[in-house]
Amino acid sequence: MAKKKSKDTKELKTKVKKLRAKVKALKSDLSAAPAPAASAAQTEAKSVTISPLAPAKFPDLPEIAGVEFASAAAGVKYAGRTDVMLARIAPGASIAGVFTTSSTRAACVLDCQEKLAMRSPSETGAAIIVNSGNANAFTGKSGQESVDKVTGAVADALDMPISRVFSSSTGVIGEPLPHDKIVAVIDSLTQRLSPAGIEDAARAIMTTDTYPKGAFAEVQGEGGKIKIAGIAKGSGMIAPNMATMLVYIFTDAKITPSRLQKMLSRQVDDTFNAITVDSDTSTSDALIVAATGKSDAAEIADLRSEPAKAFEAGLREVMMDLAHQVVKDGEGATKFVEIRVTRARSNEDAHKIAMSIANSPLVKTAIAGEDANWGRVVAAVGKSGAEADRDKLKISFGDMVVAEKGWRVPDYSEEAASAYMKNDELVIGVDLGLGRASKSVWTCDLTHRYIDINADYRS
Amino acid sequence: MAKKKSKDTKELKTKVKKLRAKVKALKSDLSAAPAPAASAAQTEAKSVTISPLAPAKFPDLPEIAGVEFASAAAGVKYAGRTDVMLARIAPGASIAGVFTTSSTRAACVLDCQEKLAMRSPSETGAAIIVNSGNANAFTGKSGQESVDKVTGAVADALDMPISRVFSSSTGVIGEPLPHDKIVAVIDSLTQRLSPAGIEDAARAIMTTDTYPKGAFAEVQGEGGKIKIAGIAKGSGMIAPNMATMLVYIFTDAKITPSRLQKMLSRQVDDTFNAITVDSDTSTSDALIVAATGKSDAAEIADLRSEPAKAFEAGLREVMMDLAHQVVKDGEGATKFVEIRVTRARSNEDAHKIAMSIANSPLVKTAIAGEDANWGRVVAAVGKSGAEADRDKLKISFGDMVVAEKGWRVPDYSEEAASAYMKNDELVIGVDLGLGRASKSVWTCDLTHRYIDINADYRS
Repeated sequence: MAKKKSKDTKELKTKVKKLRAKVKALKSDLSAAPAPAASAAQTEAKSVTISPLAPAKFPDLPEIAGVEFASAAAGVKYAGRTDVMLARIAPGASIAGVFTTSSTRAACVLDCQEKLAMRSPSETGAAIIVNSGNANAFTGKSGQESVDKVTGAVADALDMPISRVFSSSTGVIGEPLPHDKIVAVIDSLTQRLSPAGIEDAARAIMTTDTYPKGAFAEVQGEGGKIKIAGIAKGSGMIAPNMATMLVYIFTDAKITPSRLQKMLSRQVDDTFNAITVDSDTSTSDALIVAATGKSDAAEIADLRSEPAKAFEAGLREVMMDLAHQVVKDGEGATKFVEIRVTRARSNEDAHKIAMSIANSPLVKTAIAGEDANWGRVVAAVGKSGAEADRDKLKISFGDMVVAEKGWRVPDYSEEAASAYMKNDELVIGVDLGLGRASKSVWTCDLTHRYIDINADYRS
Repeated sequence: MAKKKSKDTKELKTKVKKLRAKVKALKSDLSAAPAPAASAAQTEAKSVTISPLAPAKFPDLPEIAGVEFASAAAGVKYAGRTDVMLARIAPGASIAGVFTTSSTRAACVLDCQEKLAMRSPSETGAAIIVNSGNANAFTGKSGQESVDKVTGAVADALDMPISRVFSSSTGVIGEPLPHDKIVAVIDSLTQRLSPAGIEDAARAIMTTDTYPKGAFAEVQGEGGKIKIAGIAKGSGMIAPNMATMLVYIFTDAKITPSRLQKMLSRQVDDTFNAITVDSDTSTSDALIVAATGKSDAAEIADLRSEPAKAFEAGLREVMMDLAHQVVKDGEGATKFVEIRVTRARSNEDAHKIAMSIANSPLVKTAIAGEDANWGRVVAAVGKSGAEADRDKLKISFGDMVVAEKGWRVPDYSEEAASAYMKNDELVIGVDLGLGRASKSVWTCDLTHRYIDINADYRS
């Protein structure tokens, strides 16, 4: 009894300590808050805490021949920050894309899908225009009108058909897009296009991202190197918003649109479709790849050739890197977690089980609490609807097997398991012992900060 | 600028105030904590805050002829609290049940399913034995051995075949069930069986429930009244545990097991299968109904007769009442929310969409923040995988239509919507405008307390 009492008291004391620290931190935040005269940009910068999982710095992305960028502050929602980016892609480029499967997808997503399906000739070049601050989603018929206004203005300014201008919008939903503000900066954007502008572009598409995301790969083509560089945003929100993931990848590879699309589509399942922050799919997710063909390397014509395989591996590497960066910037994330499912009966089963664990609030809160709670992993396997045999299941944390044959291992050590959970990056392994399919997905923990971001604060 | 600054400062100040209040409350908790000599039961009672959505009191449940209860403190996990309940059901009773669909279900669930499938003669009577504190889940082969020990001891004590003794266990998983402790109290339980013991039984099956749950209905049978009384537990957990829902319903109706099972199965979809707290399905969920046939009313032989319909409606009422009480005791819940989907193409679509909204962390955190964030509802509809047409969708909060025809309504009032969100009980309506199917499900909000319960504290 006495022991239990003292443990409870200890817990409460720890809690009090934490709350005091919070109060103290908030007080210092208050005293350090900028004076009323400070700019909105400063106020914003103040309120953002960089994710503890962020990379040390934005990578040095090389220029991709045939691609230029510019960004501008159009004041779509906030003043004093860049919120529009334009990419011009040289004539002859191939474009491919994958988009959200949401049945309530935004006007710009529907527009991109329609334009890609048109397979317009590439001689005219192409452009991508993206704004943050407003998602132009669930905006009725005015949504498409805004897309036409913005992409039409870019087409005019760059002298290309509107069918080759792709747009994305991310931010508040249900508000009409102030397209005039975006149209107003297009001339300025076209005058400042530069092959070196990719990092600024990555910043311009951020909403509540805590850091810009970039990735790069270089592979050996036939007769020359091929470069692949990409940027992404996700996943944050400002109420009443929703998380959105936008990704743009540029390469100087020479490849037809259909071959590029084929590679993109088959790599998306293991990369961007294998990540989750909170199981909520956006209405605006978009991933566009542009291949300029400016590399010295020969055209990638045979998808089974060595250069094709190398290019696809490089593309996958960039996609995976950006996908992981999105999870690491997941709202409130303090842990980056791989769920590695092996020996499932089928690929579908492996995916279902991995996602069931990755989206389980109980698993995610246990990870936040650094609790080696393998029982919740078992429960998430059980509820997935996929085939599983309780008595064949093996659960590991890192290299440590914690449960097998329907029970925890005889030499299970709570201390060792708990020590492992203190790592920033975790691997939870689930071996089903049924078949040969395997699948990894990536997720983050569910913390108080997630609730803070999504419930306590309103825009 | 100045306005934004002052709003931020205000928010921070409110936050500080809340934290101070928390610190103060915890301090008072600490000073009010019992001296080391106090019992564990007192310590536990102290640490539980009753859900703000709890009913004023446990209902006055009438005795059901042919059913007796007893409960005892066996010390399965904690000393000083009742943790075992026994119900004896008189000879001639019909038993029906529905159970978790988890593929990693607990030994006692598999045992109940097997025993029900055996359709043993009912002349011998039946019994239900339930313990809290240990779920006997993922305990390998020893799990079934423990079930046999416990149900065997009850069978011996009450002189009935083991095939008529049903058991449930809820609590820690992955720990061997200390069945000897349970067996040790069975003699005492059988000596104290009483028709009046149902409220104590409801308390004995609680784990981290904040209140015991009971419900009652009386319907007109042919030639007499029929009584239906039920108890439930759910949904809380103690790490490393998982939420579990256990429900036991008793009636004096005269009905065959197969007719009882049929009614139960068709009512479960709209009641217990239509609630969710955190989308995590337990390995141990069980619902057992016992009909003693002791009512003066004639046997319910024709399921289309008026008395049969009245009985099924009463059964449904008790099931719905208990299901709602489980959601109202959802971990950290401060809001009880009905998601009412209408005019879907099919029942499956209506269910998918309702559950997609009810389980969306973004919708649930918005509700916690009293934020009329209909955009997140639209996004949850979109990701559900069910048929939906953005431009036909109508979203309501209570009686207030907030969005229709692909956009928010022209006279949308943020103030009115926000005022509505302050209610404890909310109805979110989604009219798909596609077909004739409809479905309601019930959920709660996602709050800091959910994270506290599942991440901050470890058992």
